[in-house]
Amino acid sequence: MKIDILSLFPEILKGPLSESIIGKAVENKIVNIDITNFRDFSTNKHHNVDDTPFGGGAGMLLKPQPMLDAFARTQQVSVEQGYPTGRVILTDPAGKRFEESDAVDLAKEDHLTFLCGHYEGFDERIKSVVTDEYSIGDFVLTGGELPALVMIDATVRLIKGVLGNQESAPDDSFSTGLLEYPQYTRPADFRGSEVPPVLTSGDHQKIADWRQKESLRKTYLRRPDLIDYDKLSKKQKELLADVKIEEEKK
Amino acid sequence: MKIDILSLFPEILKGPLSESIIGKAVENKIVNIDITNFRDFSTNKHHNVDDTPFGGGAGMLLKPQPMLDAFARTQQVSVEQGYPTGRVILTDPAGKRFEESDAVDLAKEDHLTFLCGHYEGFDERIKSVVTDEYSIGDFVLTGGELPALVMIDATVRLIKGVLGNQESAPDDSFSTGLLEYPQYTRPADFRGSEVPPVLTSGDHQKIADWRQKESLRKTYLRRPDLIDYDKLSKKQKELLADVKIEEEKK
Repeated sequence: MKIDILSLFPEILKGPLSESIIGKAVENKIVNIDITNFRDFSTNKHHNVDDTPFGGGAGMLLKPQPMLDAFARTQQVSVEQGYPTGRVILTDPAGKRFEESDAVDLAKEDHLTFLCGHYEGFDERIKSVVTDEYSIGDFVLTGGELPALVMIDATVRLIKGVLGNQESAPDDSFSTGLLEYPQYTRPADFRGSEVPPVLTSGDHQKIADWRQKESLRKTYLRRPDLIDYDKLSKKQKELLADVKIEEEKK
Repeated sequence: MKIDILSLFPEILKGPLSESIIGKAVENKIVNIDITNFRDFSTNKHHNVDDTPFGGGAGMLLKPQPMLDAFARTQQVSVEQGYPTGRVILTDPAGKRFEESDAVDLAKEDHLTFLCGHYEGFDERIKSVVTDEYSIGDFVLTGGELPALVMIDATVRLIKGVLGNQESAPDDSFSTGLLEYPQYTRPADFRGSEVPPVLTSGDHQKIADWRQKESLRKTYLRRPDLIDYDKLSKKQKELLADVKIEEEKK
């Protein structure tokens, strides 16, 4: 997969894209990431990229020219490299809320371009090349770099060969539809705090039941909106009924 | 404000915390950010930080010892520097959904500590020191670094003196409760695409009305859940009624 990122702050992007899982995916040539500073494409002699808004108001807006000319160039390079035009993603508070299902969709693409906005806003005409507008949540950030990194991280981890252990991905929260059960590792007694005895019992069926029940409990208590009752197995429905009785008694 | 970040991947954090707005806030000593690699605190001779889960299953979990000992140390240092114990934040898919109002709350604190989890999970006992669990959205990431950066960015920009122009913050999407109206800057005609004529009319009242109306239109079309009808002014209710008629005709 080819990923183009157009940003005024390449230094924000370099660390996160060269470390840990994503860094390994780049090293292993599973993804090919190009960062382009669209300031370099400004035709203005001072390389300005922003200007005051028409109609007045505080702040500066990104002008259409530098971003759109940089985009034309990255598209040309990527097409010459054999990638399709692909999807062009803008992060915007008014965009569709980005969720795991969107990461699954993006992971199937061959080419993604992320346009990173400016903390004060951008000229609406930049949207002329955009195919998808996403928001990662109802909060305001200083730029589009962090949301782009979040979407890239969520997407790239789903590409085959990226996570070392293929079992790691499907078990996570949201991929099963339920929140994850509590987990414990050694030591069994850490400074007086012990792991639940069932986990060291060696009884696989009991452990599986406990995990399923605790997963249902956490989801019921914290994110009941994630429970699709009709999709639960008979066993899960019984466990959930037990959870409800136990929690009411508390 | 003091911010401690406990992470296995300091290189992910350095760029985003030294560039743009956040970098300037650090430079101007408005925030004091310390990154601690908790691997350095592992008492294991190989500096291991993870181990297999009790009860079986794929993947490795963060052990409680390195994170909790690193935390004890960063707390000691921060208290010696004159900061209070403060809030201790863990990013977890099961946590409360992080929103702008949470950033507003966090921006009032004097000391925040972020514990960055591992992509495969952590021992539940790490939560013994945690005061707040947040999720930035319903998607899975490879680590807690990006969500921590997102929360830090959303929070720090709200601290007085961080944004150059104090008018920039309150006008944003979510701070007014409505999505932002489309904005335009020079040139008025960019390769045949023109700005809406009202914005170059010089009529301030007309411009203000147009902006309020387009803000209502975008929110009505994309995020109707954000419109609290009872809180709209009489003028806004009239504009929204016009928007509804116009959109029905389309």
